[in-house]
Amino acid sequence: MSDLRKHSSALQEKAGISPPEITNVTAINTIKFKRRQQPTSQQLIKDILNGNRTALSRAITLIESTNPDHFEKASEIIQGCLPYSNQSLRIGITGVPGVGKSTFIEAFGKQLTQLKKKVAVLAVDPSSSISHGSILGDKTRMEELVKDENAFIRPSASGETLGGVARKTRETIILCEAAGFDTIIIETVGVGQSETAVHSMVDFFLLLKISGAGDELQGIKRGIMEMADMIVINKADGDNIKKANLAKVEFNRALHLFPPKKSNLQPKVTTCSAITKEGISEIWNTISDYFELTNESGFFQEKRSDQNQFWMMETINEQLKRNFYNQPEIISLLEQNKKAVQNNEISPFAAAQNLLQLYFEKKF
Amino acid sequence: MSDLRKHSSALQEKAGISPPEITNVTAINTIKFKRRQQPTSQQLIKDILNGNRTALSRAITLIESTNPDHFEKASEIIQGCLPYSNQSLRIGITGVPGVGKSTFIEAFGKQLTQLKKKVAVLAVDPSSSISHGSILGDKTRMEELVKDENAFIRPSASGETLGGVARKTRETIILCEAAGFDTIIIETVGVGQSETAVHSMVDFFLLLKISGAGDELQGIKRGIMEMADMIVINKADGDNIKKANLAKVEFNRALHLFPPKKSNLQPKVTTCSAITKEGISEIWNTISDYFELTNESGFFQEKRSDQNQFWMMETINEQLKRNFYNQPEIISLLEQNKKAVQNNEISPFAAAQNLLQLYFEKKF
Repeated sequence: MSDLRKHSSALQEKAGISPPEITNVTAINTIKFKRRQQPTSQQLIKDILNGNRTALSRAITLIESTNPDHFEKASEIIQGCLPYSNQSLRIGITGVPGVGKSTFIEAFGKQLTQLKKKVAVLAVDPSSSISHGSILGDKTRMEELVKDENAFIRPSASGETLGGVARKTRETIILCEAAGFDTIIIETVGVGQSETAVHSMVDFFLLLKISGAGDELQGIKRGIMEMADMIVINKADGDNIKKANLAKVEFNRALHLFPPKKSNLQPKVTTCSAITKEGISEIWNTISDYFELTNESGFFQEKRSDQNQFWMMETINEQLKRNFYNQPEIISLLEQNKKAVQNNEISPFAAAQNLLQLYFEKKF
Repeated sequence: MSDLRKHSSALQEKAGISPPEITNVTAINTIKFKRRQQPTSQQLIKDILNGNRTALSRAITLIESTNPDHFEKASEIIQGCLPYSNQSLRIGITGVPGVGKSTFIEAFGKQLTQLKKKVAVLAVDPSSSISHGSILGDKTRMEELVKDENAFIRPSASGETLGGVARKTRETIILCEAAGFDTIIIETVGVGQSETAVHSMVDFFLLLKISGAGDELQGIKRGIMEMADMIVINKADGDNIKKANLAKVEFNRALHLFPPKKSNLQPKVTTCSAITKEGISEIWNTISDYFELTNESGFFQEKRSDQNQFWMMETINEQLKRNFYNQPEIISLLEQNKKAVQNNEISPFAAAQNLLQLYFEKKF
């Protein structure tokens, strides 16, 4: 820091003048004591398995932490919770901003807790670290659910990469299941790549829409309709009912253009109003039927197993790339080669070979 | 080899009986001399730039070879041809077996050579090494084009992986362009992942279809319609004309459901008959317009530059993975961890960490 900067700080000490001593020694000792008292991994596991929400929150914070010590502790806790996980139904909900996701999840979540289900609501939103939590950041948007003792709401983990956020959410699912939550709702914004990540960690994927100007399908995100196990047209109330029903017909027709899903179940399209609660219970019935049928056919377990394999491979591939692209020598050589490729001075394959040669010779 | 096997060979020598001496010494010397005479890289480059087809074929054989010496020579040739490449239009053609791809390419290719174009027809078909060349393997299916002095037809390179075949085809494009071919047609079977690879190496992607039982869109491969810059319904002749026109309407409607393409040009749907040649010249007009418009907008160059970057990164990522997954120690540890993940004994992330730790500690 330059001298100028140093002296413009409000936290400076003048030479020769020592600051007053901190008087509240008790407070400091209390804090120090509490810090020492941080529960062990074993204690946290035990508390989570007893359904203790404070322990659950603390463990999730460890998962989300970037501190290497926390990383190890988090791994221990996940490993301890793992045998008690897998007992839930995982439902992904996506929809662009404006479709009323929060209101829908509030209504849907309340419906589930009334059926004596224990509901955890998580989110995958890599943008939230920048926008400070567009999703679930404002818990007040789920006023009733947040007060419900059978619901647990956790905003999106922050992180620079989607991969990082997705990993944290996936590990959080394990802890929530171990804590006894039997229905996990994972919310995501239907823009970018995050819904693909969510799709690969849930059993059922619900696409939330609203009826528009009659041109419902124009501009729908590539691939997102193919992932949906169900499409729900929200805000089907008042003057909107007719339009919502028309949209339902159009989506139904469009869905028939796609090849059959691996589950062999044709996605349903329904309308609902998160405000009037019209159609909410039917949605749960559809999802419930889906779980029953896929359990019977064995597709449910097969999909989970595939997802686990996928995440293992995905993690490996991501780390291999990260190790490569983060080497300072690679970074500078990559820039040179990118330019050479752009100017047609070198073929893409020769450029790649240059970089790989450096990497494997140096064995970073 | 076991003794038993050895003695059942037809090539055995009986102990004590020496084989007759080879008498045709001249022939052997001629072969040896010819081998020594293999043209140098510089000679091949010069000949290719002069449009010599034998040199082109030889160089492509070097690209396709798995011999490490050939690899180096091939790289030199590609590097030498590179400044003279990029001067062509690259057209990808895909369609499932039975749509009449070979007949279509024959008719379309003849149309181009009549317009004084020099046409190279390549193929990407990773299965051809197993099935011994379903695509272009039988050149007689393009009887006229194969005799045309302005056409050059080369079957798919063989190779275990799509990545390998795609690389070889991409490098072959560079050589064909340097040899003066101004239109490169790349054929692929519309099944599996190969059309994605082809899509990422061409300027224009044409999907060939035939009219079916009225249910044209059911079961169409995911994503393939989104890649198409044009859909051509072939076999629109005789009794088929009406059905083909109906299919055209249906495809047109379906295409409007997709978001606009990056080129900002709406894909066209047309019908044709490769037998009667009806509609073939209109197809070239559409493609020609496309090139003109994308050249003006700058999209053409932008796409090529993106494709080159993509192939550089793709090659790096593929090699990183290959190096990892081919280590014997990783292979066995991977199997163990896969099973543990499947039995829910370890989280996918912890399993990935186990493997990565071994890999980076050992620095293979």
